[in-house]
Order: sequence, then structure tokens, then C-alpha cells
Amino acid sequence: MTMMAPPDVAALALDVLAGKRRALAKAITLVESRRTDHQQAAEDLLRRLIKRTGRAHRVGISGVPGVGKSTFIDALGLHLLGIGCRVAVLAVDPSSRVSGGSILGDKTRMPRLSASTDAFIRPSPAAGSLGGVARHTREAMLVCEAAGFDVVIVETVGVGQSEHAVAQMVDSFLLLALAGAGDELQGIKRGILELVDVLCVNKADGDNVRRAESAAREHESAFRLLRSHDDHPPRVLTASAAEERGIAEVWAALAEHRAELASSGRLAQRRREQQREWLDALIREGLERALDADARTLSVRAQVESAVDSDEISAPEGARRVLAEFFRVGAERTQTSKA
Amino acid sequence: MTMMAPPDVAALALDVLAGKRRALAKAITLVESRRTDHQQAAEDLLRRLIKRTGRAHRVGISGVPGVGKSTFIDALGLHLLGIGCRVAVLAVDPSSRVSGGSILGDKTRMPRLSASTDAFIRPSPAAGSLGGVARHTREAMLVCEAAGFDVVIVETVGVGQSEHAVAQMVDSFLLLALAGAGDELQGIKRGILELVDVLCVNKADGDNVRRAESAAREHESAFRLLRSHDDHPPRVLTASAAEERGIAEVWAALAEHRAELASSGRLAQRRREQQREWLDALIREGLERALDADARTLSVRAQVESAVDSDEISAPEGARRVLAEFFRVGAERTQTSKA
Repeated sequence: MTMMAPPDVAALALDVLAGKRRALAKAITLVESRRTDHQQAAEDLLRRLIKRTGRAHRVGISGVPGVGKSTFIDALGLHLLGIGCRVAVLAVDPSSRVSGGSILGDKTRMPRLSASTDAFIRPSPAAGSLGGVARHTREAMLVCEAAGFDVVIVETVGVGQSEHAVAQMVDSFLLLALAGAGDELQGIKRGILELVDVLCVNKADGDNVRRAESAAREHESAFRLLRSHDDHPPRVLTASAAEERGIAEVWAALAEHRAELASSGRLAQRRREQQREWLDALIREGLERALDADARTLSVRAQVESAVDSDEISAPEGARRVLAEFFRVGAERTQTSKA
Repeated sequence: MTMMAPPDVAALALDVLAGKRRALAKAITLVESRRTDHQQAAEDLLRRLIKRTGRAHRVGISGVPGVGKSTFIDALGLHLLGIGCRVAVLAVDPSSRVSGGSILGDKTRMPRLSASTDAFIRPSPAAGSLGGVARHTREAMLVCEAAGFDVVIVETVGVGQSEHAVAQMVDSFLLLALAGAGDELQGIKRGILELVDVLCVNKADGDNVRRAESAAREHESAFRLLRSHDDHPPRVLTASAAEERGIAEVWAALAEHRAELASSGRLAQRRREQQREWLDALIREGLERALDADARTLSVRAQVESAVDSDEISAPEGARRVLAEFFRVGAERTQTSKA
């Protein structure tokens, strides 16, 4: 992305609200920027858009590599365009920093969807930690909502903590799975199943149909065991994105989930909680970043870590030393170091 | 507990190392105290003990209310005394703050164990948040190790996040379960099963033996599903604490687990990671406590929360305002508020 001068934020906000694609892309580049003047402009921009956010159906989609996410999202996106919905696809992929570019959200992976003017596809921001990536995706989601998208899909890789970050920002979480041999939950990380609202066994085509059905039944029984107290156990379906079968049914399950949330009042509550947790996380991250930005504190922390590792000092003493340095009270005990 | 003057820490440390019970109790009272002078003394004390810690087998035990934890720990403790081990029982129960006293660790619940001079039973500290309770228990564990206990049992209630806190401080985690009707995992919180090293279906006595065996098999198959990639899947056993059957076998499974950890080098690694995570958590908590201790920041935070709830400002803007107030730079943007 090219570095730009801080833009005319008022004009940019109006263009985003008018749904202009170029403005949308520019606005997202702005919220992803780390430049201080851009950050200030991004904050102004969000302030102008915030009242127009919140109307989209926010859908998280995950699945292990090889599950066919791109083809699935391409097919799902086409289905949504067909029923008159505008679709944005964002991505959370913390590994993009390492690999030098995200595979998720790559337009070439969703050729048909990316050809439509009613769809918008954006790769994962490549900035820093999972927290930073998720934060920028969250802000991009708000921008997309202000631009009038009806469905915002946030995709992520099924290999780590990023699912939790995505579940924290969406209304409905769809996990794509594959039929395996025997042990159907193989490869799905523990803890991910708790996040799932809808599970779809993909690649239910050709010789694979019966194995996919059997995998779906195994997942259903796992959910019965794991989430027996849930009033709303996850729906489990099969589909073939390649053959475009089952896609409408998966969307119906997601839409039904969203409708249940809305009618019961849990949607508003869930989003309020998500906002509050986001705020708390941002404050925590800001505190830790401030600590990490202080060279003297970092040096004390390194010494403390090695002293704790070798059992020379206890962890509480170590923490007290780090905090004392950070709050610049030297060797004096602070009220904040222990309670 | 009576409030005491800051003690002669050097003498107290020697008495703890000599295994004197009264010194042990006094030392734990000291590490649990919130008084500033006590905190300083506690830190000094831990510094004098730290090199003598780490030799115990640290065992976490949890289970839902009604599972028979007290009777089980009483029986397990007696078994350990019988094979020549000194046993300390500590507790993590954040609800003790609310209820005005912890039920866990209550000596009257473990009548035979509490009668022995080679056993030490300590109720949950009643101080504050789960983090605070866990922290004090962790420090008490170190004191018990320095006092020469061979096994430190940390018990907790099977109803929430406290299991995660306990798993973060022990070598082996034992979950007690009951035979239910049909759905055997009912009542066990999601996520807890991931922590388990050994699972024991208790109350396998009388008419209940066959149901307990069947529950054990269901748990085994759940672990096969959930933890198929584990090199060390949890052992599942049945026992009757009331009839004292199966207790030695449960201990053998725990001892075997610990021996595997030790021989593979994973014990040292696990403890190093636990220490590092504890240090990090203490630093984070200290930062948040400092923020919460600042009245002006708290007031800004309350305003910000309500503005974010009503979509007047975005969460990033809200976080930036709170942090700016905390770092006393007024309305100016700080380098720490966004990155």
C-alpha cells in the first residue's frame, strides 16, 4: 500500500457512507496504518462512521488448511450476492507478518466473488501481533458496515488462537471441517469447538459423501457430549463448495442463528460484551505496550526473567522490580506492586 | 487470623526450613497478608526459601460439588502418609471472599488427615480476585515445599476458571467425576477436560460400580476424540473414597504421570513456563491495579465505557483516552495509545 498524506477525513467519511469502493479501500488502509498522523485521522474517521455501524451480519469462518475455505467462501459469497446481499470478506491471519503477505483474503482465491462490484475482499493486515491484526480487522469491519455491506465475513486459519479473536468480533461462527478416517475431530484444536455456532463438513462430493455424513454425525455426538447444557447446540451440515451443494443450507443455518440471537435480545448483549471486552483488551495492550516501549524497564525485565528462571528471586519479587522501574520509583516499593 | 507485627524473617525462614508447623502457618499468613510491611517481609521470606522449593509433587484436584472431594483427599492423604510422604493440602476458592470463608481446605472435612503431624491443611485465602487467591496459594505452595512436604495438593471447585489457575501451578491435574445418567460429561465445564492428566470416577461403590465403570469408558472415549493427538492421553480410573478402594491406583497413575514428565525433561520445561507465565501475569496485574488505583483514570474510564456502549466513540478512541489520562498527558495523544 502506498503511504498517503492524512486525507480529508470528512470527505472520506462521506464517500465511505456513500459506498464508494475506492474510499472504502483508502479508509481501511488508514485504520491499518501505524503512522501517528494516520492514527489520529483514523480515529476521527471512526468517530464519523460509528453511528452507521452494527447492521451487518458478522460471520466468522475458520477451518484447517486444505478444508477448502476459499472455494467455500467464493461459493457462499456468490449465494449471498444472488439473494441481494452485499458481502465483504476480511481476514485475520497473524502469520501474514512472517510469511510477508496473507494468503487469506487473497482475491485470486475467490475469483468469482472478487469480480463483483457488490463484494469487497481484503487480505489480512500484516501488522504485528494477533491482537494488532484482530484490532485492525475489527476496525475494517466497522468501516465495511458503514459502507453498507450486509454481511461481513471474517475468515481465519484453523490452527491457533486467532479463532478466539475472531469469535470475539462476530455474531456467528462457522467451522469448516473435513471427513477424516475414523477420528473425525482430529486436527481441530481443542477449545475451537466451543466457539462454533454452525459446523459444515465440506467436500461432501463424489466418493466422499458417505464419509462426510458420518463425520457430521460424529461431530453432532461430540457436541452433545461437550455442550449438553447449551440451549442452542451447533447445527451440523455437509456441503460441497466445489459442486455448490449445501451452500444455501449453511447460509440458512447461519441466518437462523443470527435471527435467534436478535429475537432473544442476546445479539445486543453479545455485541455490548464484545465491545466492552475489546475496550478492556485495548487498555491492557496499551499498558503493556507502554511497558515494552521503555528501554530501562525492558532491561530490568530481562534480568528479572533470568533471576526467576534460576530461582534466585520469586516471581512476585521480580514483578515488583519490573513495575517499580516502570513507574520510576527506583528501588522503592510502590503501592501497585502487590495486593 | 490475627494481625502480627512484621516478624523476624530470618528466624522464621529457618523455622520453616526446619519444618516447624507453627512457623509454616505463620509464614503462610504472612504471604497472604495485604499489609505493606507484611508484603515486604513476605518477599524477604520467599527470597530466603526459594532455593529450597520445587521438590514436591504438585497435584491439582478438582470436581463438581458433591463429587466427594473431601473424603477423597482425606483417603488419598492417608495413603500418602502410609507410604511415607508428608502432605500439604491448599485450596483455591475465589468464592470464599463472598461466602466469608472457604469450605475448601476446611480441616473438619478431612478429619483423619488433619489429625496427622505429617499433614498440613490450609483453607483458601479469602483475598480478592481469582488472580489474588491463586497467587497467594502459589506462594503458600512454595513455603510448604521449603518446609519439606513431599506432596502438595491444591484443591479447587469444579465450577469455573479456578481450574485453569490451578493447572497453571501444578505438575499433575486430577479431575474427580461422578457416574451420571446417560450423559457422563454433563456438569463438567468445557475446557476443563483439556487440563486433565488423570480422571477418576468416584463413588464407585454399592449399586454404583457398574455405572461408574461405564462412565469411565465414556470419559475414555471422549478423551480419544478430544485429545487424539496427545502423546499422553489422560488415565481414567474408578475409585470409592468412602470404601477406600482404588485410591492407591489413582496415586500410582499420578506418580507415573509425574515420572514421565520428569524423565522426558518436560517437568523442568513446564515449571519454567509456569514461572514465566506467573511473572508475566503479575506484571500485567500490577499494571492494571495501578490504573484502577488512579481515581481520575477510573472516572475517565467510566465515561468512556458508557460512550462506547452507546456508539458515541469507538473502542480504540476510548482506550486512547483512558491511557492518556493514566499517563497524565491530558488530551494529547501518547505514543503508547495506539500501535
